Amino acid sequence: MCQFRKDPLSDRWVVYAAGRDERPNEYEVNEARCKRTSCPFCAGHEQETPPHIAVYRSGKTAVEANGRDWLVRVVPNKYPALRPDGDTAVLQNGLYAGSGAVGAQEVIIESPRHVASLSQLSDEEVTLLLHAYRDRMLALRQEGRYRYVLVFKNVGPRAGASLEHSHSQVVAMPMVPGEVAREVAAAEGLFQQHHACFFCQVIADELEHGQRLVTETRRFVVVCPYASRMPYEMWVLPRAHASHFEQEGNDELNELAGLLRQVIAKLERLLGPLAYNYFIHTAPFDTSAPRHYHWHVEIFPRLTTTAGFEWGAGCYINPVLPEQAAAILRSSSGVH
Amino acid sequence: MCQFRKDPLSDRWVVYAAGRDERPNEYEVNEARCKRTSCPFCAGHEQETPPHIAVYRSGKTAVEANGRDWLVRVVPNKYPALRPDGDTAVLQNGLYAGSGAVGAQEVIIESPRHVASLSQLSDEEVTLLLHAYRDRMLALRQEGRYRYVLVFKNVGPRAGASLEHSHSQVVAMPMVPGEVAREVAAAEGLFQQHHACFFCQVIADELEHGQRLVTETRRFVVVCPYASRMPYEMWVLPRAHASHFEQEGNDELNELAGLLRQVIAKLERLLGPLAYNYFIHTAPFDTSAPRHYHWHVEIFPRLTTTAGFEWGAGCYINPVLPEQAAAILRSSSGVH
Repeated sequence: MCQFRKDPLSDRWVVYAAGRDERPNEYEVNEARCKRTSCPFCAGHEQETPPHIAVYRSGKTAVEANGRDWLVRVVPNKYPALRPDGDTAVLQNGLYAGSGAVGAQEVIIESPRHVASLSQLSDEEVTLLLHAYRDRMLALRQEGRYRYVLVFKNVGPRAGASLEHSHSQVVAMPMVPGEVAREVAAAEGLFQQHHACFFCQVIADELEHGQRLVTETRRFVVVCPYASRMPYEMWVLPRAHASHFEQEGNDELNELAGLLRQVIAKLERLLGPLAYNYFIHTAPFDTSAPRHYHWHVEIFPRLTTTAGFEWGAGCYINPVLPEQAAAILRSSSGVH
Repeated sequence: MCQFRKDPLSDRWVVYAAGRDERPNEYEVNEARCKRTSCPFCAGHEQETPPHIAVYRSGKTAVEANGRDWLVRVVPNKYPALRPDGDTAVLQNGLYAGSGAVGAQEVIIESPRHVASLSQLSDEEVTLLLHAYRDRMLALRQEGRYRYVLVFKNVGPRAGASLEHSHSQVVAMPMVPGEVAREVAAAEGLFQQHHACFFCQVIADELEHGQRLVTETRRFVVVCPYASRMPYEMWVLPRAHASHFEQEGNDELNELAGLLRQVIAKLERLLGPLAYNYFIHTAPFDTSAPRHYHWHVEIFPRLTTTAGFEWGAGCYINPVLPEQAAAILRSSSGVH
């Protein structure tokens, strides 16, 4: 039986995904499994996924018919741990709290071609992908039962990808997940202390001093955060204060598409093909344009392994200072 | 330059270990590197590590001379990110806080023989190992400059081990690391709410109902925690309330040695040789026997991969309910 449980000591939520036994990689994701010869995400294999939720075609927005002429395709996760129906109430049972595993899990297939990284998408595919992120957030927000949608991407077995074909995932939850809740609360505290948005201050600081600035465009900056946990960790931030990703306009999404592809290509030129994750941190649905929270994309190259020290202490050991990482990323001649 | 930095949003500390370029596995730990043919931890290779801090011989406690007749050997980490000298003051620099990378990093080599897991140690080796944990904690506590010592173990490249030869690590820090600080604060909150130690309540509950009980001895219980993040995650807890590991007596350590080896052997019988971490969570040095905090060992089989969902949401997806995991672990006939 699937369920959510909350650890009383850390307030961390865990999703129990019992019954996912048929999932190709129940425990471990390995290289061989990830690179299967027959790929259910390639064009012509549409019947191997559940029916689509949306498809995006060249020059058009979402249309209804199923077929092979898509560029980006949204389908339900075939092995979901979360289900859309059920009670979202958190029940206390003695020492412990838990609830039904209510939520939505969707997969966004980013290209009909079998490519492995965002850097290999076409201009149109990566733009449609970001439109799909926004559309799915807006649609799930509209359903009214969710407080948060996490959009994320896993590339490579080391980063948890169970299929090689480039895809993103969308998870809607009835609660604000711990990592986001902590970040929003801390940002509120910092706002009260400094009378300004922490993220806006980071942007101003990096544009002035440039120590950790990787690149900038008209509407965005990319920085290596001051306390990066991973070598070459990056944040992509809109210059103008904005709390909710799903409220961005087309101009912003189109510009972000090119930038995201560019910085991932930069990483790959520097380090070769690598495992990475990225995810969007945005304000919860039930907060109204907070001045203290600023959406952003966090990009995580998976170059180090979390060991007993990281799990036990919650500290990270990073062999590359963010200033060094940013300087190396800025020098675009850094070819692998 | 090595330094500690604190992320203003999460209060997470990061250690920048610049200058560890000579470390065999700067970024990635892989199988081939881990299984080197010439092992610096094997008997006869004592010159390949820095001079020992302590050695443990058969039937004796720590002695001074260097030589080959040791069973357990404590040496400084050859590639430390932390150094014992320097200023531990946390300095605020504009938006950010940081400090010198002050600390101690030691390695405990658990056997002169090239074995890969705690389950392969002899009775005497595993007992001496636990004595070494206590001795090092007491010695580092005595130095007066550290607030916390984390003892942990990495087995297998997936768990961050860079050498196969079974070893533990000891890291002394001038601050209480985030994961421990949060746990201690939450335990204090739960104590105020329930007028009892949370961990003592968990023990009583599991001894009464046994749902998540794996095994028990005279002085210890082993449970799968209610919100386990990993399949087969286990906590080893002393039955009698005790806040500080380093204050335990010889009887406790000797019993714990056998138990720890037994539960890891249980895991390996069930799942085959596997990557795992464990670490000791104990009360910070500068807290005096708190009634709300109870030391314990957390055992983490590394069966799942942390992907974008775990990093972005701070939630975990676990395919095995702790009740199922405990039931499977209890049935000792579960041979791999």
